[in-house]
Amino acid sequence: MKLMKADAPPKASAECSEPAAVVRRELTLVESKLTRLLESREPIITEICRYLIDGAGKRLRPLFILLIYRACGGVEANVEDAVDAAIALELIHSATLLHDDIIDGGMLRRGKPSAFARYGVAASLVAGDFLFCRAFELCGRFDERLVRTAAGACIQLTEGEVMEGRLRHQAHGSFDDYLAVISQKTASLFAAGGRVAADLAGANAVTIETMERFGLAVGRAFQMVDDILDVTGPEELIGKPVGSDLREGVLSLPIVIGLQERPELKSMLRDGGPPDEAALASALAIVREPQVIRSARAKASEQVAIAAGLLCSVADSAYKAAIAELLAAQTERVS
Amino acid sequence: MKLMKADAPPKASAECSEPAAVVRRELTLVESKLTRLLESREPIITEICRYLIDGAGKRLRPLFILLIYRACGGVEANVEDAVDAAIALELIHSATLLHDDIIDGGMLRRGKPSAFARYGVAASLVAGDFLFCRAFELCGRFDERLVRTAAGACIQLTEGEVMEGRLRHQAHGSFDDYLAVISQKTASLFAAGGRVAADLAGANAVTIETMERFGLAVGRAFQMVDDILDVTGPEELIGKPVGSDLREGVLSLPIVIGLQERPELKSMLRDGGPPDEAALASALAIVREPQVIRSARAKASEQVAIAAGLLCSVADSAYKAAIAELLAAQTERVS
Repeated sequence: MKLMKADAPPKASAECSEPAAVVRRELTLVESKLTRLLESREPIITEICRYLIDGAGKRLRPLFILLIYRACGGVEANVEDAVDAAIALELIHSATLLHDDIIDGGMLRRGKPSAFARYGVAASLVAGDFLFCRAFELCGRFDERLVRTAAGACIQLTEGEVMEGRLRHQAHGSFDDYLAVISQKTASLFAAGGRVAADLAGANAVTIETMERFGLAVGRAFQMVDDILDVTGPEELIGKPVGSDLREGVLSLPIVIGLQERPELKSMLRDGGPPDEAALASALAIVREPQVIRSARAKASEQVAIAAGLLCSVADSAYKAAIAELLAAQTERVS
Repeated sequence: MKLMKADAPPKASAECSEPAAVVRRELTLVESKLTRLLESREPIITEICRYLIDGAGKRLRPLFILLIYRACGGVEANVEDAVDAAIALELIHSATLLHDDIIDGGMLRRGKPSAFARYGVAASLVAGDFLFCRAFELCGRFDERLVRTAAGACIQLTEGEVMEGRLRHQAHGSFDDYLAVISQKTASLFAAGGRVAADLAGANAVTIETMERFGLAVGRAFQMVDDILDVTGPEELIGKPVGSDLREGVLSLPIVIGLQERPELKSMLRDGGPPDEAALASALAIVREPQVIRSARAKASEQVAIAAGLLCSVADSAYKAAIAELLAAQTERVS
């Protein structure tokens, strides 16, 4: 595989101590353009979008896209493409958050009332549609294959949402079912981000493919760690009650592992409906057991290892180092 | 203005007695590709999309786009572009129907239970998102300006939905408010269709602009006639109870005209909430009065006249004649 040489990254400095530092300028561009794109002729749409997006969220997807773009040799002259792609994916991600909260009846998001809880179904549904449209408006300038990649990822997100719903409150979900859901519902957008970033950077077909698989593994690892945090907490860091997935019947990683390793969990999770409070407490105790959490962490680490392996094919650079650092931080993060 | 010469249309025959006949083959292409695009890996998504779209609906938007494409000189070699644009707009329209029924609590659609009533919020919301994504996937092959036109129309649709909600159950809506809502909520997609069709046909900038304004007028006329039918019925033809707009507080054409011409209507429409049954019956009697309906029909005819005037700039052809016939039929239609 041809190794692509990345542009010389900014010099390390006291401020450059975190992975985001090497693309700080690009992230600032993302932030200012993103804010502009939330403007609507209808003030309530702008308000909801700002409530969800403005200054909130980790911007993990933009960060990964920008780092991959640079690590794959993306040059300064075309950085606006990478910035737009990063914004488009953050807009799509935000649209799905708005719609997911309606579908799941999610009342809390990032430690505060969800847009659905605060503004109701109608306004938050329309605001989600608005964000989808803004994303595709932005994608208009890209080649057909990039638009198709983004639209294809969106289709997977919707299908993943349905699959998750199908498996809800089912006490027989397997790890393969779980992996299929998170691959569509979360990782598809990371995979599309990896592919688009490498493509925009002018990488060859093999690298583009590799970065798509890299994104898939990163997205899976990210969701797995989220699932573990859902049961380990603490609440003040995860911004929602511990055990929400169990309560809502979402087939999360600790639950599928619990079902494999501790057969008595199955009897606590009634097929077809939410568990009662006593069963919920017993089930939560099981999925929080050190052995279950260890097995869950091992699954997440496996995805991180796959991602790290795929990253090896990219030439060394400060950008690649930043990605590796972000990746390593995934299994350690607490919120 | 340069008049563009259209391709020689199919010869008139016994079967070619209706406006759609001159683009029958193109409409068949639309139908078969549309059916394929409703396929999802999740059967429930396919089922909902088929329930709404398959074999149902007037396909008015595809018909107008195909006729405009041909009337503006669009050639056979690029007809697939026009077919794809027609499908994309029908997909977007269908997505908004699914989401609108959730927002408005619409239980009936085209004389049968709406997808929302039959499949619930979650599934019909996701199916709407799926259709939006399919539309943009299809748009990927088009130039940036066409994608931007489509995305811009979608943004207007969402903003129109919010504006309509803002004016709901308000007894002080003006005709200008009404025109602003329907221009965004309904006519923006016809306007985008007109622009895109002329652009794909290779028309000059003036014609493209004219066809956008033509679409706007057609879309407005279409919505105005729909609003009149909502109060005149009969129910078996309109597929929903007579007076639904009054009941739901939607600012429709007969209502804004009633408010202008019959001041007592205002007292029957409580600001801020639905009218009681007695007030509803009195209000319905007013908006059905021959004078109110005549004034409403005059407003629709005004838009038809604007559209007909704009159509004059296109060279004569069987396609143009079909458009004119469709246009004239708007004010006469009963469902």
